[in-house]
This record gives sequence, C-alpha cells and structure tokens, in this order.
Amino acid sequence: MEAWKLYSRTLHTGEKVLIATNGFWADRAIAMAENYGLEVVRLPGPSNETFKFEDLEKEIIKHKPVLLFISHGETSTGVLQPLEGLSKICHRHGCLLAVDAIITFAAVPLFVDRWEIDAIVGAPQKGLAAPPGLTFLSFSERAVERMDKKKVNPPFYLHAKKVANCWRCLNDGPAGFHYTWNSNMLCAIREAFLQLLEKGLANTWENQTKMAERLWIGLEKMGLKLWVPNKEKRLPNVTTVILPEGIDVKKVCRYAYDVLHTDISFGIGPTYGKCLRIGIMGYNCRPEIVDRALEVITEVLDKYPIYSKQYTSVGVNSWGR
Amino acid sequence: MEAWKLYSRTLHTGEKVLIATNGFWADRAIAMAENYGLEVVRLPGPSNETFKFEDLEKEIIKHKPVLLFISHGETSTGVLQPLEGLSKICHRHGCLLAVDAIITFAAVPLFVDRWEIDAIVGAPQKGLAAPPGLTFLSFSERAVERMDKKKVNPPFYLHAKKVANCWRCLNDGPAGFHYTWNSNMLCAIREAFLQLLEKGLANTWENQTKMAERLWIGLEKMGLKLWVPNKEKRLPNVTTVILPEGIDVKKVCRYAYDVLHTDISFGIGPTYGKCLRIGIMGYNCRPEIVDRALEVITEVLDKYPIYSKQYTSVGVNSWGR
Repeated sequence: MEAWKLYSRTLHTGEKVLIATNGFWADRAIAMAENYGLEVVRLPGPSNETFKFEDLEKEIIKHKPVLLFISHGETSTGVLQPLEGLSKICHRHGCLLAVDAIITFAAVPLFVDRWEIDAIVGAPQKGLAAPPGLTFLSFSERAVERMDKKKVNPPFYLHAKKVANCWRCLNDGPAGFHYTWNSNMLCAIREAFLQLLEKGLANTWENQTKMAERLWIGLEKMGLKLWVPNKEKRLPNVTTVILPEGIDVKKVCRYAYDVLHTDISFGIGPTYGKCLRIGIMGYNCRPEIVDRALEVITEVLDKYPIYSKQYTSVGVNSWGR
Repeated sequence: MEAWKLYSRTLHTGEKVLIATNGFWADRAIAMAENYGLEVVRLPGPSNETFKFEDLEKEIIKHKPVLLFISHGETSTGVLQPLEGLSKICHRHGCLLAVDAIITFAAVPLFVDRWEIDAIVGAPQKGLAAPPGLTFLSFSERAVERMDKKKVNPPFYLHAKKVANCWRCLNDGPAGFHYTWNSNMLCAIREAFLQLLEKGLANTWENQTKMAERLWIGLEKMGLKLWVPNKEKRLPNVTTVILPEGIDVKKVCRYAYDVLHTDISFGIGPTYGKCLRIGIMGYNCRPEIVDRALEVITEVLDKYPIYSKQYTSVGVNSWGR
C-alpha cells in the first residue's frame, strides 16, 4: 500500500507513469500518483488473470513512461503476477520497474536483485506475521541514480537517502539521527525474521503452496468456484472464492466474526459483493487453520438462510466500495 | 521532532516562516523548512533563557511570516518556553503559531485550544511513557482553512485531512481506508492514556514539578550548576546540568550506562560537551528514580579520574555534533 513512497522518491511532477491496473491496490497507486501530480497512463487488465509481458511492452513502447508500477500480489482479486524477466523489458526502454510486494513478501518466491526490480515495497503484517506499522523498501542502483538527479526534495521524514544513511546502508558520513524509531516494532520484526530464518525461506514458500492447495481443494469440494480459474495464477496466501448468487457477503463475514470468531474478509474492488477473501499466511499457515476455515465457510453458508433474516451487515467497514 | 508535518500541510514553497532558534530541535525545524523550500527567517535566542513575546512580535512585524515555529520544551537545552498569549500576538499580524510539544505533552500544562495554538505536535514516548512510533497532531480552524487553500497536495501518506477523515475527526463521508495502522502502537497508547486518566493530568503535572525540584536540589547540593539559571524557565522533565571542566561527558554517560546500567544523555546542540541531560518522566517520575539518578551522578563523577583513563567514548552516538 505504501507504494506511494516509490513515486515520491523517484519521480518528478508531470512525469509519465504506467500503472497496470487490475484491482484495488493498483487503483490506490493511481490515486497516489495523481496526488503527486504525475501523468498516469492506466493499463487495465482482467481481474482474474495476470498481465502478459508482451502487452506491457507494447504499452511501454507506446507511452514511454519513466516507470511501470505493478502489484506482485493483488489481494483484492487473489492474482499473483509473474515478475521474472519484466525488468529486462522495462530497462530496454529506459523505464523503471516498481512493485508492490506487500502481500507476497516472505510468502512467495521473490528475488529483488536477481529480477532487477528498481523499487519494491513490502510489509511486516502479511507473510512475516509481525505487527503492522513499518515498511520494507529496496531500491536498485538505477532508482538511486534517479533519486540523485531529482531536483525537488522528498518530505524530510520520507527522505530515503537520509533514512538509508541512518541504517548505514550508505557509506556517507556518520549515521546521525533522523527521527525516533518505533523501537517496539523493530524488536517485533527482528523476532519475526529470526523465526523465518529458523523455518527457512524455501520451506515457508513450500508450506504456503501446500496450504493453499489444501484450501482450494476443500472449497471446490464444497461446490464453490474460485475467482481466479488458473491455479498457477493464484496468490497462495489470499484466496478469492465466489459465493452463490443472492448471498450478502458482508453478512457472511459478520456472522463468521461475531458468532464463529473467525475473521474472513469480503471482496474489495473487482470482487466486491461477489467473493470471500480468505487470508492464510504466517503463523496461521497450518493445516488445522485451513481446515477450520473450511468448517467455518461450510457452516456460514449452511446457516445463511436463517441468520441472514435477522442480521444486518452494518458495522462492517465499507472501504471496498 | 516531526514538526515538519506542520510545514508540509500548511505552507507553500517559497513562503516565509519565522523560527525561534535556541537549540537542536529548532535547528531541525529549520532543516525541515528548508527541505520544503520555505524561506526561513531565524530568530536566535539564548540557549538558557526563554524568548520574550515582545521580541517575537517585533520580528513578526518586521518579516511578516505566515508562521512562527517555536519549541514548547527544548530538550537540548532544558528550556521551557511560555506559550500563553503568544497566539494572540501571532494572529494580530496574520501569522500562524506552530509548536513542538514533543517533550511537554502530558508532562507540563498545555492548553492547545485555550491558547489557540494553530498546529502542534506531541509524541507518546516522553511524558506519556508509551513506546515511540506515532505522532499526536492538532490543527486549529485557522490552520485547516489554510490547508484547504493549499494548491499543492501533501504526500498521500501524510495527508492530514484524509487521516482525520479515517479517524472520524471530520464529518466528511465514510471513514474509508487510508492505510494499515500500527495496531500494537494504538493499543499501547490507549493503555498509556488510561493510566494517565487514572492518575489525573493535574496530579501528573504536579508530581513532575516535585520530582524536578527534588533533582535540582540534589544536583545543587553536589555543587553542580544547572544550565538554565532561572528555575521558572526550566523544563521539569529534562534537566541540563553543567559538568566540571575537563570531564569528557560522553565517557561519563558511557560509564553510567555500561557499569551502572543507567541511561543518562549527554548534551546536544548548545549543551554538547558541557552538560548531562537527565530525563525523568512518565513511569520513571518517582522519588526513588530521582534519588538513584543522583547516586549515579555522584558515583560517576567521583570515579571519573579512575575510569576515564581506560575508557574511550567511542560507540556513543554522536548526533549532537
């Protein structure tokens, strides 16, 4: 979500960016880009499919953007976008590649340096299962070069080079004091990384895939259809499942939460009103949690005709609208 | 410290601001203002005294700034700046009043609305004794009007009106989703406020004053001089005490930390190399902590000739330089 940082640090007002748009987070990126006065070219994609590299290249050639923004995982639709090789296409045409990896960080194979991603943002509260409140950022040499050329300063607080210097990422004089860090968050994240190291990253990815398949098979056995038909293109940690027509998705979520004490999300953006979004990741990425989720969904759908009459969906946040 | 937010939301590039400068944090405010391309008029003040309102008014008349920035408490020097009545002077000349209240928040009497402060910033990690990582902000109607007139958008993430809307401070449509909050911090701050309410704000202020006086008397009994001679002008929760000449302040702090497990700061800005800065506030604002601080300082000075020979001051952060 904090992909805005990518803009504020690498781009000038008025410059052109290409945003691959297939869900809520890409729309956010557009809102951010427009907030910064960038010229936005949106490339709409289907909401249950990935973007094809050849289509992206065509748009890059046509519009000559300085940056392509794309979501690695789009949680509003459950689509996982392949990224390997995309930067080569971008760089061939003098374009930077910026990626939102909030949901995929520590859950899905992601090689920032090997795939030559120029700007990427991750978060602690998804695959890493740490509390929310900080952001992971990485910039390529190419992106840093661009920042160095930037004439307008980024906001003081968000000044990537000043922050990088404090973290001794740069050999640029003494670390100095930029601002008071959120020390509790740093401890929490350190612990989360230790747990990840103990488990191993490859094991974590493998387990995530297994749990996703366990969930998908379970849902399909219940006669439900998944939003993303091709399983290779599904995000393994957020699953979008279509509910039978006539069911008020918010009531389902509310009942699951209030009565069964299980937090399942409703669809946002393209899946709004149509899907449940089931997030299984981090500490919860275990067979018993997957099975419990399946039980809850079974019960929630079975009982729907009964509770839906007396239940209003008021109080469930409506930010997907 | 995050006083930069005040600039980014209320001012345009090129506008003139007056910054009352008597320590490290005012210097920071200047760095932030310059980062935003504002025209900075600095009004230097003595580092062991408060600013006089008549001097401030003269400068406002002379320079016609759109905003006066001043620190309520300047932790680098230990000066507490009176604020009551200052906004009247500012408003008479069409100037906003912006205040850094990081250190005074929940420790010292402060009436944001009654004193008509236009923009103010506080923090959880000082008087409130909660973890660091969030900021408290308040804007007057006057400041909000100015924001509404602003042509250049603030960064998306720092968009005060969007954030205010999410917190339902404004009656401006549904709350929506701005970004993922740091939920752990919100819980910690809620708990800290509950503790403050139990104790009572007036009791907290009174206790802070008592503990400060206990500390000051103790230090003076040891033959030490306080940096701010007039006790009415001293910040009660950060005390700056002058060390005898020839003593390496960093070595003293390092020894206190390593051997006596007590974290006392060295001076920064105007007090660098000259003072210790003793912070006693929040949970630590108790007689036994004051007495322990006095014991530690006694020991640290008594033993100085011995440990100073073998001790280097390397490793103590040098951000005050």
